[in-house]
Amino acid sequence: MCGIVGYLGQKEAQPLLLSGLRRLEYRGYDSSGIAILDKGQLGVVKRKGRISELELALQKQGLPGKIGVSHTRWATHGIPSDANAHPHLDQSHRLAIVHNGVIENYQLLKQRLSDSGHHFESETDTEVLAHLIGEAYDLLPPQDPQRLENAVRSALTEVIGTYGIAVIHADCPNLLVGARRGSPLILGIGNGEFFLSSDVTAVSGQAQRVVYLSDGDIVAIRPDGFDISSLTRPRVGFEISEVEKTEAEAELGGYPHYMLKEIFDQPEAIRNAMRGRLDLEEATAKLGGLNMNPHQLLRIQRIVIVGCGTARHAGIVGEYLIESLAHLPVEVDYASEFRYRNAPLDGETVVFAVSQSGETADTLAAVREAKRKGMRVLGICNQVGSTIARETEGGVYMHAGPEIGVAATKSFTSQVLVFLLLAVLLGRLRYLSARQGKKLIEAIEKLPDQVTSVLSRHKEIRAIAEKYADAEAMLFLGRQFQYGIALEGALKMKEITYIRAEGHPAAELKHGVIALVDERIPSIFLCPQDGVYDKNVSNIAEVKARRGPVIAIASEGDDRIGKLADDVFLIPQCSELLAPILTVVPLQLLAYYTALSLGRDIDKPRNLAKSVTVE
Amino acid sequence: MCGIVGYLGQKEAQPLLLSGLRRLEYRGYDSSGIAILDKGQLGVVKRKGRISELELALQKQGLPGKIGVSHTRWATHGIPSDANAHPHLDQSHRLAIVHNGVIENYQLLKQRLSDSGHHFESETDTEVLAHLIGEAYDLLPPQDPQRLENAVRSALTEVIGTYGIAVIHADCPNLLVGARRGSPLILGIGNGEFFLSSDVTAVSGQAQRVVYLSDGDIVAIRPDGFDISSLTRPRVGFEISEVEKTEAEAELGGYPHYMLKEIFDQPEAIRNAMRGRLDLEEATAKLGGLNMNPHQLLRIQRIVIVGCGTARHAGIVGEYLIESLAHLPVEVDYASEFRYRNAPLDGETVVFAVSQSGETADTLAAVREAKRKGMRVLGICNQVGSTIARETEGGVYMHAGPEIGVAATKSFTSQVLVFLLLAVLLGRLRYLSARQGKKLIEAIEKLPDQVTSVLSRHKEIRAIAEKYADAEAMLFLGRQFQYGIALEGALKMKEITYIRAEGHPAAELKHGVIALVDERIPSIFLCPQDGVYDKNVSNIAEVKARRGPVIAIASEGDDRIGKLADDVFLIPQCSELLAPILTVVPLQLLAYYTALSLGRDIDKPRNLAKSVTVE
Repeated sequence: MCGIVGYLGQKEAQPLLLSGLRRLEYRGYDSSGIAILDKGQLGVVKRKGRISELELALQKQGLPGKIGVSHTRWATHGIPSDANAHPHLDQSHRLAIVHNGVIENYQLLKQRLSDSGHHFESETDTEVLAHLIGEAYDLLPPQDPQRLENAVRSALTEVIGTYGIAVIHADCPNLLVGARRGSPLILGIGNGEFFLSSDVTAVSGQAQRVVYLSDGDIVAIRPDGFDISSLTRPRVGFEISEVEKTEAEAELGGYPHYMLKEIFDQPEAIRNAMRGRLDLEEATAKLGGLNMNPHQLLRIQRIVIVGCGTARHAGIVGEYLIESLAHLPVEVDYASEFRYRNAPLDGETVVFAVSQSGETADTLAAVREAKRKGMRVLGICNQVGSTIARETEGGVYMHAGPEIGVAATKSFTSQVLVFLLLAVLLGRLRYLSARQGKKLIEAIEKLPDQVTSVLSRHKEIRAIAEKYADAEAMLFLGRQFQYGIALEGALKMKEITYIRAEGHPAAELKHGVIALVDERIPSIFLCPQDGVYDKNVSNIAEVKARRGPVIAIASEGDDRIGKLADDVFLIPQCSELLAPILTVVPLQLLAYYTALSLGRDIDKPRNLAKSVTVE
Repeated sequence: MCGIVGYLGQKEAQPLLLSGLRRLEYRGYDSSGIAILDKGQLGVVKRKGRISELELALQKQGLPGKIGVSHTRWATHGIPSDANAHPHLDQSHRLAIVHNGVIENYQLLKQRLSDSGHHFESETDTEVLAHLIGEAYDLLPPQDPQRLENAVRSALTEVIGTYGIAVIHADCPNLLVGARRGSPLILGIGNGEFFLSSDVTAVSGQAQRVVYLSDGDIVAIRPDGFDISSLTRPRVGFEISEVEKTEAEAELGGYPHYMLKEIFDQPEAIRNAMRGRLDLEEATAKLGGLNMNPHQLLRIQRIVIVGCGTARHAGIVGEYLIESLAHLPVEVDYASEFRYRNAPLDGETVVFAVSQSGETADTLAAVREAKRKGMRVLGICNQVGSTIARETEGGVYMHAGPEIGVAATKSFTSQVLVFLLLAVLLGRLRYLSARQGKKLIEAIEKLPDQVTSVLSRHKEIRAIAEKYADAEAMLFLGRQFQYGIALEGALKMKEITYIRAEGHPAAELKHGVIALVDERIPSIFLCPQDGVYDKNVSNIAEVKARRGPVIAIASEGDDRIGKLADDVFLIPQCSELLAPILTVVPLQLLAYYTALSLGRDIDKPRNLAKSVTVE
């Protein structure tokens, strides 16, 4: 999604801004741009397409100067184009802004500004914001020592929507202003230099310390330091944190794509997620970060899990795990639906918010709504120090390491593992005996090696992927613990291959979806040995009866499935509770190798963004 | 889905059986067959394809005789073919059986029978059952006066799975045997003649009275009467009901397809669903069939709604309605998932099972599981006297009239209306004032006329349908009350046009699905005036920014949407609670006219069945 990098310091801004943008590239974008101040003049270059296009343009016409703002755009209002790329300028062409988020009342504001003579060069909501700030600036007295900050403050009071912004003005050669509401923004502090960025990744290696700005903050950065105020208060408190090592740039390490690297990272990632959290002695899991004692955990009567995309799918697997082991009612909701539906909750309900980045706008909004309702909200995040991690009362870090591929892989298995630990913990407080707990923990400890064994057979999946790469559409089918995996398998396929893939509970096929089945539409059935194996076999027969090709992900030792399915991939035998972590891996590889066959841009699929910071 | 018709009487069986099969045709099938006994000889004719193929074959070689069984098959094991069509014969070729349901352990049974010399001519599980009964018959002494019933009883004890069967044997010229477990079977009683059928529709007009057989029943019909026993008891009780008028055959009434007729039936259907149930005086809804007094209704703490396909989508709309008006937590589950997941329930939870036919196998299984857990289970069904209606403690009939089109339309709006009434009733017991209740009831009373006004503008939708009929895929997007409508719109499109249509909450687009968007994939946005209108507009802008065509279903008086969307259809202004009943109608028409443009077989889409009586 959109990325912001701003710089103020003693060095040339252009190479630092470009290197920051490069680090944000993985988040998905469709155009980029840069504005730098030099000798009271504003230089701007913007290009549709990859950052390399911008660099090419800058080779012809470099931008000197030591203060600037830059941006990668993921289109929300207006198609990707040079004109719609950020930075945007105000009417005077002396103020430049970059912006993440959505200004919801931009049409009204645009109308008012047009009526008073403003001309717009783009279709974006951001340009309206630029003009609004420029107008406020012109109305303030030139002698105001905080004229630009005050103009930003004044303009933002008129705005409905979300924003993270960085602003410079040709009149102010030593001032960089930032503000946020709803979209993340961090202030990076280096040696005599400062950064503004939407993501700590962009400044890691440059800034040693960071301030995670809070919603409503306005920061004014000058060479000698910075001030943080808010829309209503002249000064607000803040906290300076060290940049953690794990936030440093991830390397490809010899893999052709981040996605493939991250699929192969999984044994290590889930090992990290369980490290120090399994207690064989007490036959339970330990999750101290929840900040809840056993007595409090025992009082939970209901759990609501909110998330988007892949994180929601992990929540669906979690729902079955917690219901099975702890027999607590669990409901999973789209974060975007949860936040508006005024869901009935009570004091004994706990809300879990799942987000790899910890910045997902819909999920963050759901967290805040649940908090307003007096709920205890806990986070399951990967990014340490992210907004959701900070705004929740506690939670569990995934410790999966940086995930760069837009299609989430290792964050999914880590999230499922965290839910498994949570289910064991809640289960042991309720119905699980020490013997059952111990057995589960021993099985969980085997998972990393079992994932490694699945990965070692990647060539089998590659052959299947190549066989079906020209499919028009695909169906992914699973029941119970495998239902969430069916959804996730379909999403991976859709995200990086653009094949129309759908995930459904296997039984739901015959209630409509089976109309799609013919010789050209393969169905992928998740049918490891579990309580619904026989039912799955009946559903496979229904698909075969309509000549649909069937790929089955089954368990080692299954000698029935080979007679029914066209292609079979076998996972190691394990409890049905643990199987989702093993069955999702071949589906990740299936999507990857299919995309490879089709020549897709795997790490940067069209239209998509890594961390979705608009609603 | 599969249909059974059996006959024993004084008339020629063939025309009666064929006419019964014709009445079951709407349920979906891919082959049919008939077996008739005459002078100790069994005559069998079976054909892949439509019933007209079977009739053609019977014109060449008629089957005389006054006792017979017949079947329409919806393939579960083995492709549609002459050989796989029912009836199936035993090893001696003297016993014929027709069967609905799935024999889960057929592979094991087949192996055992093959080892002892049995030969099979089809890939079906049913043929295995025929051989199994034939084997049991041969082992029983010829002097046993109940040899055939006893053979059926003995064979069925070996079977795991579901069945509704009808059996005849060349040795028994005056005996028709039926049995059921999991699949419906009814005994029709006429004047000196008897019918066995999977559906009362098949015998209406012929039989005046019926016995709805219960699970485990075995019926033996002879010219002078019938006996009902069970697997374990020599005699069981039963009840004889009159055949109701509404169960009589539905007529096309000048429409080219049942689906179109049923779309246009909707003003009348929802008028029937609300008739006698609105009380303006008391500002509430009256649903006496729930069999719960106000005190009991007030004690409900949580509601679980189970259903499949369209019925589940109505449940999702119901979830938002009940949560809004009564502020009770509601969870909607796939019936197939619910039945196996051992969901945590307690005594204050009420389960609603939604099924038009009242025979949906997955939903019925969920009803039984919930009853086993001591839950109060209520039904929302259309078919009076159906298994779900009989096995629940109470419920609400939809009174939508017979629905023949495989793609459900009027049953959906009727189900949503029933949930609306339920939400008003539960709301008035809790948070709704008399004033609010009255306002809602007045608005509900306007709905039939508002639906009529939407239908009168069918040409606008037809034009949109023709414009986009060659789309490769379509996205249906809605939030909150419109989320279930997005799912239902996509399902209609998929069922009858085979276009890969997906429904999602609008906000979820950017979490993966937006990768599919390009110039050829239209998105249908449901954005009437409601609390999330502005958010929808932002999501439309995201799609337009990627050049995706947008069709918007919006409210009259909306002057913003026309500037964003490519095509707009406006519904009458109404409360956001009622809008789902109005927005779904244009989506039904969109699917219908798209299918018409593509020349699809609208009332009998491929692979699908009307009432899904296998799991």
